[in-house]
Amino acid sequence: MKIIYPNEQELIQWRRCLHKHAEPGFAEFWTTNFILEQIQGLNLNITLGKNAIDTSSLLGYPSQDFLDTWKKKAYANGVSLANIDMLENITGLIVDIWPSKIDNKQKVPTILFRFDIDAVQVNEAENISHKPFLLGFSSINKDVCHSCGHDGHIAIGIGLIKALVSIREQLGNGVRIIFQPAEEGVRGAVAFKKYCKGIKYAIIGHIGMKAHNNYELVCGVKGFFATTKFDVIFIGASSHAGGEPEKGKNSLLAASNCAINLHAISRDGRGESRINIGVLKAGTGRNVVPDQAYLSCETRGATSDINECIFEKAQNIIEGCAKMYEQEYKINIVGKCDSAASDTELIEKIYNVAQSIPYFHNEKIKKMEIGYGSDDACTLMHEVQKQGGLASYIMLGSNLAAGHHDSYFDFDESILKPAVELFARLAYQLTN
Amino acid sequence: MKIIYPNEQELIQWRRCLHKHAEPGFAEFWTTNFILEQIQGLNLNITLGKNAIDTSSLLGYPSQDFLDTWKKKAYANGVSLANIDMLENITGLIVDIWPSKIDNKQKVPTILFRFDIDAVQVNEAENISHKPFLLGFSSINKDVCHSCGHDGHIAIGIGLIKALVSIREQLGNGVRIIFQPAEEGVRGAVAFKKYCKGIKYAIIGHIGMKAHNNYELVCGVKGFFATTKFDVIFIGASSHAGGEPEKGKNSLLAASNCAINLHAISRDGRGESRINIGVLKAGTGRNVVPDQAYLSCETRGATSDINECIFEKAQNIIEGCAKMYEQEYKINIVGKCDSAASDTELIEKIYNVAQSIPYFHNEKIKKMEIGYGSDDACTLMHEVQKQGGLASYIMLGSNLAAGHHDSYFDFDESILKPAVELFARLAYQLTN
Amino acid sequence: MKIIYPNEQELIQWRRCLHKHAEPGFAEFWTTNFILEQIQGLNLNITLGKNAIDTSSLLGYPSQDFLDTWKKKAYANGVSLANIDMLENITGLIVDIWPSKIDNKQKVPTILFRFDIDAVQVNEAENISHKPFLLGFSSINKDVCHSCGHDGHIAIGIGLIKALVSIREQLGNGVRIIFQPAEEGVRGAVAFKKYCKGIKYAIIGHIGMKAHNNYELVCGVKGFFATTKFDVIFIGASSHAGGEPEKGKNSLLAASNCAINLHAISRDGRGESRINIGVLKAGTGRNVVPDQAYLSCETRGATSDINECIFEKAQNIIEGCAKMYEQEYKINIVGKCDSAASDTELIEKIYNVAQSIPYFHNEKIKKMEIGYGSDDACTLMHEVQKQGGLASYIMLGSNLAAGHHDSYFDFDESILKPAVELFARLAYQLTN
Amino acid sequence: MKIIYPNEQELIQWRRCLHKHAEPGFAEFWTTNFILEQIQGLNLNITLGKNAIDTSSLLGYPSQDFLDTWKKKAYANGVSLANIDMLENITGLIVDIWPSKIDNKQKVPTILFRFDIDAVQVNEAENISHKPFLLGFSSINKDVCHSCGHDGHIAIGIGLIKALVSIREQLGNGVRIIFQPAEEGVRGAVAFKKYCKGIKYAIIGHIGMKAHNNYELVCGVKGFFATTKFDVIFIGASSHAGGEPEKGKNSLLAASNCAINLHAISRDGRGESRINIGVLKAGTGRNVVPDQAYLSCETRGATSDINECIFEKAQNIIEGCAKMYEQEYKINIVGKCDSAASDTELIEKIYNVAQSIPYFHNEKIKKMEIGYGSDDACTLMHEVQKQGGLASYIMLGSNLAAGHHDSYFDFDESILKPAVELFARLAYQLTN
Repeated sequence: MKIIYPNEQELIQWRRCLHKHAEPGFAEFWTTNFILEQIQGLNLNITLGKNAIDTSSLLGYPSQDFLDTWKKKAYANGVSLANIDMLENITGLIVDIWPSKIDNKQKVPTILFRFDIDAVQVNEAENISHKPFLLGFSSINKDVCHSCGHDGHIAIGIGLIKALVSIREQLGNGVRIIFQPAEEGVRGAVAFKKYCKGIKYAIIGHIGMKAHNNYELVCGVKGFFATTKFDVIFIGASSHAGGEPEKGKNSLLAASNCAINLHAISRDGRGESRINIGVLKAGTGRNVVPDQAYLSCETRGATSDINECIFEKAQNIIEGCAKMYEQEYKINIVGKCDSAASDTELIEKIYNVAQSIPYFHNEKIKKMEIGYGSDDACTLMHEVQKQGGLASYIMLGSNLAAGHHDSYFDFDESILKPAVELFARLAYQLTN
Repeated sequence: MKIIYPNEQELIQWRRCLHKHAEPGFAEFWTTNFILEQIQGLNLNITLGKNAIDTSSLLGYPSQDFLDTWKKKAYANGVSLANIDMLENITGLIVDIWPSKIDNKQKVPTILFRFDIDAVQVNEAENISHKPFLLGFSSINKDVCHSCGHDGHIAIGIGLIKALVSIREQLGNGVRIIFQPAEEGVRGAVAFKKYCKGIKYAIIGHIGMKAHNNYELVCGVKGFFATTKFDVIFIGASSHAGGEPEKGKNSLLAASNCAINLHAISRDGRGESRINIGVLKAGTGRNVVPDQAYLSCETRGATSDINECIFEKAQNIIEGCAKMYEQEYKINIVGKCDSAASDTELIEKIYNVAQSIPYFHNEKIKKMEIGYGSDDACTLMHEVQKQGGLASYIMLGSNLAAGHHDSYFDFDESILKPAVELFARLAYQLTN
Repeated sequence: MKIIYPNEQELIQWRRCLHKHAEPGFAEFWTTNFILEQIQGLNLNITLGKNAIDTSSLLGYPSQDFLDTWKKKAYANGVSLANIDMLENITGLIVDIWPSKIDNKQKVPTILFRFDIDAVQVNEAENISHKPFLLGFSSINKDVCHSCGHDGHIAIGIGLIKALVSIREQLGNGVRIIFQPAEEGVRGAVAFKKYCKGIKYAIIGHIGMKAHNNYELVCGVKGFFATTKFDVIFIGASSHAGGEPEKGKNSLLAASNCAINLHAISRDGRGESRINIGVLKAGTGRNVVPDQAYLSCETRGATSDINECIFEKAQNIIEGCAKMYEQEYKINIVGKCDSAASDTELIEKIYNVAQSIPYFHNEKIKKMEIGYGSDDACTLMHEVQKQGGLASYIMLGSNLAAGHHDSYFDFDESILKPAVELFARLAYQLTN
Repeated sequence: MKIIYPNEQELIQWRRCLHKHAEPGFAEFWTTNFILEQIQGLNLNITLGKNAIDTSSLLGYPSQDFLDTWKKKAYANGVSLANIDMLENITGLIVDIWPSKIDNKQKVPTILFRFDIDAVQVNEAENISHKPFLLGFSSINKDVCHSCGHDGHIAIGIGLIKALVSIREQLGNGVRIIFQPAEEGVRGAVAFKKYCKGIKYAIIGHIGMKAHNNYELVCGVKGFFATTKFDVIFIGASSHAGGEPEKGKNSLLAASNCAINLHAISRDGRGESRINIGVLKAGTGRNVVPDQAYLSCETRGATSDINECIFEKAQNIIEGCAKMYEQEYKINIVGKCDSAASDTELIEKIYNVAQSIPYFHNEKIKKMEIGYGSDDACTLMHEVQKQGGLASYIMLGSNLAAGHHDSYFDFDESILKPAVELFARLAYQLTN
């Protein structure tokens, strides 16, 4: 079996082009079109638009105004109106590659790769020490930047498709590649859960993280937190604080109690948990009883059960605080993902394949690391694992110029080609 | 018209005898029997036992064990079992005096006097500087003492009945005298509201207060707070604070939030309000998530409306705190009374009668004073005023040895006779 | 004695011109210049600029940037640079009128009138039902409008000076007129306290309020609250809420506790009190432990003592909350005024003079009303009263188109002339 | 080498005798005397009384009244007054056994065993299903019972001494046995830290826990929490809640805020933490502003650093709450212990010895388990480890009739003899 990989320069060019056109979560119109252009004519099963997702479970989906703004930018940067309309407001796509020997395309692919495609709300550094600025491929969109490496992920995904097309008939079964919007804020994955049905192996790669040097590889991860991101709104009644304070229904006090008591939710004997109220805004004027309040919150848990438990307690507290101060209230879930530990059995397989790829120095290949924060890939991993499948999260070693989400973040593009190689070989091996 | 008053020595003797047999609220069995003995054979309409009150609205009513203890003491001090049984667990009585010219006893009396009969939870001073101790009429019941002057009130009430009997046929209409249990804790009055129906004048006297010198008189009072006394109980679930803290439903935190937020209830633009959580007890052991809590609370308001408003807000807070920490909860109202200002028109009448009684020095007769705290007489006054009647609260001047509820409290008995005289003349005048 | 009053049309013209050039508190550069122009050449003692005030006690004084913006607008609207510079960043002025018989100008005037000159942060209605819009004298400054009637006050003040000049030699002693900046937010008066020294009578008039119909007059007011307006800032330390929550010093929790416990400050047995936290803003991002918080607060008291007491308790709570969450904190007092009841003796004098002015209908002249909210005139009244002087706050009857601070607020200009007349006669009478 | 063990019946008899005379922490006078009697005449180095401990670091030490009560009971149960006096109010003892070849007794022993000697505040079951009751060796002291198995520990300790005496000359160096008071509430160990100096091996055994079946053994433990037990007292000022609420300094509100905010202390990114307020008591009467409050608290941490961190935050919160409500306050530390994981190297040695003792079934010997709660043995382990020594905590398998601290707790005495054997062999091996 001989896999034909795309040229390294091509991978780099894709990545830089994507970097330049960074778009925020759920608004990756230019990006989605770019992917489509690169893979057209390859005889693939592509799912797009409203068919691509479970629209009823969209989390943290932006307003139509916001989407329209980004559609206009995509148009201004060369995407045709027809192509924009074709996406039906939904970004991302699913690509299935099948060997022709599998007749019935109703059968499900064996393996699923997920590549996230959104950028971060960061204003990119404008300084010649920052390579994208020096070489002229900085983000053209103010306050939106690929400071997490997803531009690289997309390039790897496109490369992987091209590599797999070259060995299509040698594949034992179908391979699925998801280009997922809105990983930031752990929003997007939940709408793609249906694509996990019947999948045996789920593999997600991320540049950097704890593999922040060239030639390193981490084959699996445990310890990502399950998390729920949510906003709380209280609506009370205002009144003049001097004249008729008793007529007010004080939203500021409801929110203040809520903040303190959410933090006071008990620890969990089963493992780590977290809660944070990151923002509280309430009230309008010094002498007015506040009639509205907003809180931006998140819970986390070492397991999905722990996260669920703390989120349930949080709901009781919010409802109780509303009752205390006669408030109407609303809890908006704007992001959510499960916890998922990589499976030892799959880690072993990845480890073995990685050792045959010269880029990865054998002594720098680690089987397992503890994750930091949350990644909604876990929602897909969890879904696959629930059905008896195996999943793993891979950290792809690359020298980082600065930490993830930093305005100086940049990675060493030499990881792109070996990453494609690793994934292509895994696809071949795991389908045969 | 010539009123025949009881001898002053008789009034003093009654008062001392009552002082010696001080009984707590709702347990005034000996006291009720004593009143009955003094007024027997006078051809009065007397209502006793379960007929006397509205049992459904009893507040802060004690346990049967408590009542039985005091019934045994009454028996030990000479009350027959038959008489105790006759009371049907209900202390106090209502006496109506009618001139024979009023045929139809269905008609309601014109005027109502209220005398409270319970003692206070105070351990009486044992010191020769304390006259009851020196003269040997100290309370025989430990931790229960007439430290508020209600013993004097009862003596005045008995004296008033005897005086009115002497002018029964000169009365223009019936006169009602209520001997009410359990004024302390503002518990008793509410069960006697039905006796206010149709009453034109309600008069309540209290020894001392702001008339704490001999020869003084205050003809009316404004500024008693309406108040509600209540207990709150939270029941949650315990768990080991180290091993399974997430399984606990923390009653201590529910109660703590409750205490703070009850205090944070907004001021009222319509007038003064108060709230106090006087006692909080929660939890059992250092390493156990607390599964029970108790709070002892009270609200007050310059008007009944304000008190109702703050109590409603309190209920929301309690319910909300229960919701927050998944508690079962109970609010027990153990006392309640309205606010009531004395009516200027009635004050004028009292003022005029008082000026004709030599004991009261004219320059020491005040028309109006601000009250302090609460008296459940206001509940009866409020009820009469709602129907268009007039009401007033009178402070009867007497040198006090110490403040009300002090273990050294004592009053100068020279007030007893002029108080009877004032009330008897008012009864005559207001019924004619 | 014959007082020569300005023509009514002149008063109205001044008022409309001032209305058009509404300026915010402490930035009344155009306004101050306008007053100066109207009264120039009248041989008055005028105090201006830094001499005019006690700069060390300035409250809620804006930034230099803010002042510069408004100085530029004043210049653009015709005020010379020389005149702007002359004010030394300080708006308002003090005018003393002396009869020539008083040689030694070190002697203090007998009577003080205060006229407030600032506008409100309101965006004026643009609708032909709003007279200033219809007649073309709407505020030219967006979001700043004379919606409280201070434009009328200034016109009355200028008219009063002209009237008094016409009887200068008949005055028994000096008369002081203060044009005070920044009454809104109760900021300005405190810096003018030194002008109260030795004053026997302080008179402050306000158009409308509870005299919101033509021909009405209220000669005195009780019940303005003493008040303190203040901001609180907490500075803590941020950290990643998932990774290192223990390193954060949570400003949001400090502020939330602060808000609840400020509201929980106990009622005061001596009279009404208020507290309000009108605005709370804390935190920056959902997954970041908040390191900053801001609260906008006010206390009020029926007396200055009560207000001081509640503000002292507030300071303890703020300091305690800072300690709890290891915060640096700052309390910025941005406004403050005393409570002051009008003096009965002065009210009688005003009442008598008012009855001789035909505009005020005798049956519509009230001696006393309860005020609403706070006015920093009370700080000057309080200062005069402390020295044994008398003070009164007068409500000048005028049909109001809408409530104070409403974008449709307007008053009936027919009050201007009789107001000048009332004040001029009082000045004559009280100095003789 | 032939170790002569005490007869099993003797071990059982000791245990039952100790069970019958259960004494609470720091009051183990009878118990200490019993141990002394069993080991007298064996030529041991025994340290007693005030020399035995570091009195300055005693935590949760009871009142003299409490000690006197238990000294009287000890006397009543046969301990001579001279022996009681000899203990100088200090219970427990330290026994060093030296082979004669070690001349200089200044040298420190190689190995330290700790046996805890106190009973629990539990009222022992009186039911024939409970063996101690059936066989007549129930605790004679109401509400104090050996419901944790420390009676067995003491018997093992005495047996160990006798066994070691039989091989004294074969020992390579000294062996130290600490009979420690007051393990319950993690109070006693800290006062014995000085005995860890220079120790190479610390071994602590506990009957049951996660080895709650016969023939089981757990050779080491990780995951005991470091913990601090403390009480908080607030002293404020009372006042009448209706009349002068502003004069109160509300201890109940200080304590309530304290409780909530202690629970709201942030999680720790380094590992598990816990906090609990188990008891809150505040206030005296419904209508009195509360002037005192008491809280019973504990913190825990997966490491001593985490526990220290949470306890420091707790201190800030307590101080802040005191400041908020103008309270005097006091924090009394009544118990404290470190976290300590058993050392792998020592676990291996224990594992090897245990496999040669037939009682322990090889398949039931576990190397490591996670502990539950806290044991102040960790303070001694931590101290030894700090100096480079090794430590392990052993769970001795025994069928339990009910959980630890249950009123039906009882263990199978067949563990006593093999436990002595295990410890004696370890002492021999580790000193040679």
